Amino acid sequence: MRAHSEAYSRVLRSPRGEAWPVKKLINDPMEFVDETIEGVLLAHPDHLKRCEGSRRALMRADGPVEGKVAIVTGGGSGHIPVFLGYVGPGLCDAVSIGNVFSSPSPDDMLAATKAADGGAGVLHLYGNYSGDKMNFGMAAEMAEMEDIEVATVLAKDDVSSAPVEEMDSRRAVAGLFFAYKTAGARAGEGASLGEVVASAEKAVFNTRSMGVALTSCTIPAAGEPTFSIGEDEMEIGMGIHGEPGLRRGAIMPVDDVVDEMLEHVLPDRPFESGDEVAVLINSLGATPPEELYIMYRRVTQVLGEKGIAIHREFIGEYATSLEMAGASVSLLKLDDELKRLMDADAYSPMLPKF
Amino acid sequence: MRAHSEAYSRVLRSPRGEAWPVKKLINDPMEFVDETIEGVLLAHPDHLKRCEGSRRALMRADGPVEGKVAIVTGGGSGHIPVFLGYVGPGLCDAVSIGNVFSSPSPDDMLAATKAADGGAGVLHLYGNYSGDKMNFGMAAEMAEMEDIEVATVLAKDDVSSAPVEEMDSRRAVAGLFFAYKTAGARAGEGASLGEVVASAEKAVFNTRSMGVALTSCTIPAAGEPTFSIGEDEMEIGMGIHGEPGLRRGAIMPVDDVVDEMLEHVLPDRPFESGDEVAVLINSLGATPPEELYIMYRRVTQVLGEKGIAIHREFIGEYATSLEMAGASVSLLKLDDELKRLMDADAYSPMLPKF
Repeated sequence: MRAHSEAYSRVLRSPRGEAWPVKKLINDPMEFVDETIEGVLLAHPDHLKRCEGSRRALMRADGPVEGKVAIVTGGGSGHIPVFLGYVGPGLCDAVSIGNVFSSPSPDDMLAATKAADGGAGVLHLYGNYSGDKMNFGMAAEMAEMEDIEVATVLAKDDVSSAPVEEMDSRRAVAGLFFAYKTAGARAGEGASLGEVVASAEKAVFNTRSMGVALTSCTIPAAGEPTFSIGEDEMEIGMGIHGEPGLRRGAIMPVDDVVDEMLEHVLPDRPFESGDEVAVLINSLGATPPEELYIMYRRVTQVLGEKGIAIHREFIGEYATSLEMAGASVSLLKLDDELKRLMDADAYSPMLPKF
Repeated sequence: MRAHSEAYSRVLRSPRGEAWPVKKLINDPMEFVDETIEGVLLAHPDHLKRCEGSRRALMRADGPVEGKVAIVTGGGSGHIPVFLGYVGPGLCDAVSIGNVFSSPSPDDMLAATKAADGGAGVLHLYGNYSGDKMNFGMAAEMAEMEDIEVATVLAKDDVSSAPVEEMDSRRAVAGLFFAYKTAGARAGEGASLGEVVASAEKAVFNTRSMGVALTSCTIPAAGEPTFSIGEDEMEIGMGIHGEPGLRRGAIMPVDDVVDEMLEHVLPDRPFESGDEVAVLINSLGATPPEELYIMYRRVTQVLGEKGIAIHREFIGEYATSLEMAGASVSLLKLDDELKRLMDADAYSPMLPKF
């Protein structure tokens, strides 16, 4: 054992200056987002660069791609690889970045839109949250005044957030991944803005997700857990910012958790015998890969019994909530076009391999 | 809100039958490892298969690779992607899998060794832990009785575990990744067993790591945290099974944490002005990517001041401890050969993209 260097006697401080014993590897909580972006740019300089006129908008280092429909996304921080990890070939072209769990500004969204535009129009593709809709809507109007054609597609995959008849009021969770993959691949094929919108809308319409949360996360600048949940409890259907789910109850065996989630997810689209699907098992942060694979095992059993074939699986961290323990299951109902787009090449150094 | 289906009223049970409120998505804790393996094989059937004669040994689906030196690894579960996530082209050929944080059996190691052997000899490459050494040693003896040539290289990168003069008693942490990448790429070039050993030994000798832990993890069958640590505390230098570190103290700004870790790591090899290095920032599980990037930002600042150039970075989950919060920094001092091997292609669907 070596002696502790006296140089390191500073303690972590809150935005108000008091000692801040959050279980996090951070500096000033108010610098969390900008220091993250700085680290990302230092790590991936061949892949990402800042958009002109904004410190909170990033784009492909080789962009804009002339003649290609550009995909622009964005939203609050704290969900990596959502959102900035989805910029790359076969995925999005630019991203605007908000504070933790907060919408980016219209100015940052406009900067991303203008920078990514390659002359073939821009698709705003993001999650169905009111703050993002308002700000992206303003950015789209401003972009159109500068003669950039903008279309919008919103992901709304969380079946626990509203009944299927009110799908337009459902929030987005990890199933946004399928919309990114679809739109990015379709744009990469040289499709028009209208064609990219149609494919992305189909992916959104064919995606259903449900999550389960075991612990809260802590927003750095808040310093306290976003919500409280008992040591012996889990919440099925919770959203990725801690929005209320379907129910809270005792921790069950995960096979039962998966069964209950699929009991809501499968009839919702519906997914039926003879269907082919892509499956996404997503960790919300602290839940380790071992548990995701145990969940995938049960998903294969249930889908097998129902006669639903798995064309492709994605297992890992695709949309997180800081250090929240929990996971989600997303299904995408496939046709020949969506299979082709799911199988297309895509690259970001911030994603799991697939 | 929908009604809770009465079908889901089972609660998670411990191995002794009592209610088991661990914050985990698991079934029977005693089935954790085998259900994980089952899920992995269901997810990646084109990539992995079982070795003949063992349910706890896996290998490349396209193996054995005739004429290539085979790399065989193994160790306790709970560290994915370590160990089974490192089987793949440009990496390892086979793996034996133990219970959580426990060594696999010599029989499973022998099964992996025999199945992976392509006639050019086998390298046993794993972490410097006494249980693994004993069991792999027995497996190597048994394999040699069957005329399979076996060599052994042990990773021992954790500078906090023993002074540099006693490097052979140091434990392995995430820096094992560099040894895998080196040996796997060298074997893929068609090198002999002696040449692969030499390159792997060089990678081990040139690798230094240090970690920091903020929370414990919980072994599923134990049901209680492996160790306790105060809400306002962190431990610098802790091992990936909770082995004691350099010191425990108040949570500091992460820049100070990185500075303290590098103050131990840099003089140890040493890493000096003019050196080129690969950097690995590894999450132990719950620590989110945002924090890893903030750590990387500080690493670039410190190395920049010292005149040490970063050739390549790896940031993500490369060696975990279930849901432990914490991270480690590993450096590999590069020469032309190691640069070539770090840059070589490698693939496993269980690794981050790189």
